[in-house]
Amino acid sequence: MTSAPPPKIVRPTLLVDKTRCVANLRKMKAKADQAGVRFRPHCKTHASVAIGLWMKDLVGVECITVSSLTMAEYFAPVFDDITVAFSVNILEIDTINRLNRKVRRLNLLVENVEAIDFLQQHLELPIGMFLKIDVGYGRTGIPAEDTERVLQVLQAWKRHPSKLLLRGLLTHAGQSYDCQSRDELLLVHQHAKELLLKLREKLLAAPELSGVGPSFQLDLSIGDTPTCSVVSPDDWKGLDEVRPGNFVFYDAEQAEIGSCTHEEIAVAVACPIVAKHFERRELVLYGGGIHLSKDRMVASPSENDPKKTMYGRVVRSMPNSPLQWGPIVDGMYLRSTSQEHGIVVVPPQEDMHAYRVGDILKVLPVHSCMTADVMSHRGYLTTDGEWISRMED
Amino acid sequence: MTSAPPPKIVRPTLLVDKTRCVANLRKMKAKADQAGVRFRPHCKTHASVAIGLWMKDLVGVECITVSSLTMAEYFAPVFDDITVAFSVNILEIDTINRLNRKVRRLNLLVENVEAIDFLQQHLELPIGMFLKIDVGYGRTGIPAEDTERVLQVLQAWKRHPSKLLLRGLLTHAGQSYDCQSRDELLLVHQHAKELLLKLREKLLAAPELSGVGPSFQLDLSIGDTPTCSVVSPDDWKGLDEVRPGNFVFYDAEQAEIGSCTHEEIAVAVACPIVAKHFERRELVLYGGGIHLSKDRMVASPSENDPKKTMYGRVVRSMPNSPLQWGPIVDGMYLRSTSQEHGIVVVPPQEDMHAYRVGDILKVLPVHSCMTADVMSHRGYLTTDGEWISRMED
Repeated sequence: MTSAPPPKIVRPTLLVDKTRCVANLRKMKAKADQAGVRFRPHCKTHASVAIGLWMKDLVGVECITVSSLTMAEYFAPVFDDITVAFSVNILEIDTINRLNRKVRRLNLLVENVEAIDFLQQHLELPIGMFLKIDVGYGRTGIPAEDTERVLQVLQAWKRHPSKLLLRGLLTHAGQSYDCQSRDELLLVHQHAKELLLKLREKLLAAPELSGVGPSFQLDLSIGDTPTCSVVSPDDWKGLDEVRPGNFVFYDAEQAEIGSCTHEEIAVAVACPIVAKHFERRELVLYGGGIHLSKDRMVASPSENDPKKTMYGRVVRSMPNSPLQWGPIVDGMYLRSTSQEHGIVVVPPQEDMHAYRVGDILKVLPVHSCMTADVMSHRGYLTTDGEWISRMED
Repeated sequence: MTSAPPPKIVRPTLLVDKTRCVANLRKMKAKADQAGVRFRPHCKTHASVAIGLWMKDLVGVECITVSSLTMAEYFAPVFDDITVAFSVNILEIDTINRLNRKVRRLNLLVENVEAIDFLQQHLELPIGMFLKIDVGYGRTGIPAEDTERVLQVLQAWKRHPSKLLLRGLLTHAGQSYDCQSRDELLLVHQHAKELLLKLREKLLAAPELSGVGPSFQLDLSIGDTPTCSVVSPDDWKGLDEVRPGNFVFYDAEQAEIGSCTHEEIAVAVACPIVAKHFERRELVLYGGGIHLSKDRMVASPSENDPKKTMYGRVVRSMPNSPLQWGPIVDGMYLRSTSQEHGIVVVPPQEDMHAYRVGDILKVLPVHSCMTADVMSHRGYLTTDGEWISRMED
């Protein structure tokens, strides 16, 4: 039996390594199982039903998180237990009602009285609800210390508790993305967990909420890739659910934070070289902001280099496996991107002659969520040579 | 006769004001006509055949610039004179040959001997060629002062000049995006123009190129929105072609540079408000990096404020025209975006109660090219209530 040759890459192409991706999923799932918490991975990073099926069939994922109602509709044929982890947009009530008829268990995120009032008036069927709690990220959600504001929202909820089925408290400790060490990440995690535990204790004892019946229990749900990647199963004890998302692919930023190694990163953008500038020791890629996104990080290109702004790190190509990639090339990175161009710095130890116009260079993205999003219309090419599609949101 | 009500916005939506867009096009076209230079606007900002037809039918545009071969194929049914202003990616030779059979006049960009050699071997039909010259931006192209390198490339070209029809010298003075005043922009323009004129003079006199015949003339083509917006028609005299692109829409960054007023900006992203934080005086939008892109700028939110990093400026809504927008709200801007969230700073003089969960807020993007790209799958909603589509590249 002969197999077809792998597709030839001629334009910027987002590669996904299924082996690495499934390994990342299995590792996180095993940790959740060991801790006895529900594993509800976020699908916004990959946003692909094909990868959803890897999750379900190869890893045993049963419930998922998404970031929009559109994404919930996209995954509804594959998963029947979905949390939309974005503060509910009440303007989409028609979509909510339509989706709620299709999905067995659908949860929304609520953080204000306006949304509670509106949903109670306009929901056709009961739906699950998490309260969005802010544990220090400062993006959105009710600050965990502000019990009074949480109680205001829950008192509005209490007027018609049968429409909105209260599931618990949900948070995203996004401040973990600013951490620079494992110790800092563990502190962020412990702080978030303590805040949630304390808030739940206060709410369960609050006289304002007495009489809401035995259905009143509060699951605690957390989920950010940096802390989820470094904690031990014991650190998750006392929580009910974890929702990391980026870990499916990881990226150069996560490696910098310490969430993963470069070898665990499961996506790379393959880009043609279109020009070489010997005097600057730079290569020009067909691969810019519309292929990698404009997300960037500040990091050392090589161990002893000063930190630089970078838009991706270059990895070694594998001469006999055109769709796979090897380790990062020390000191080689994208120093800038414009719409279609990426400018690569070639470190002193690399031979400029080894890189030719018309070669393909592979780049680990800074932020895989954004890269996969800007490349969504092209989908992914797996390192096995299979094209898989992705939704556009 | 009654007309249908305008579509109701319930999700992040890219609005385009046709009146403003066509006015921007007419103004630039009039300047080009007055200067006697060819007007070849870049289509990568809008990337929409519908807007291409506004260009052609309402403004009289006859030839265009695009940034990829895919985009050239997309516009080929509407325009038959197209320059692909990106250093040629030789891996796409099949597309080049296919497109070259369809488009009457197609021009590629070349900057190295490798591309010349490859094209001369693999082109099926003659094609136009511009040399990509760097006038100080430092992204790519042969430095304008490096006559020797230009001559090397042209000597390679001279071996088979009938396959590659030399059209001229092309540059993009992208350093104009770092300018902070009209005077700085004029200096960038004068410098670029002088470099091109000087280089052409040297090339036309170069003994290495003698004997290439009467076909050897060199058009000079420039194109960046900031300088094109501020120069007078006289400043363009001596050049042959102008290729601005972003001016079709403009954006908050261009207003900051001084290329346009805020009233000339022809696109805005309409975003639902999902949360309010009184204590922080901030609003949370359903509108993040996947809707606005991650491009940002540093600018003063209000005349006397210190500079801040911002991802967009908020404009006034018009109660009776839900798809249109008014002037910017002084001091109101997006201080951060994550994937789906945008965080809006509400300035002291604005009443927080005037903004409600479920309202639509309109945001002028920092960089309209990138915003239109990340929103490409949704297309544009015109302020007249018509949906128009956009290609995805």
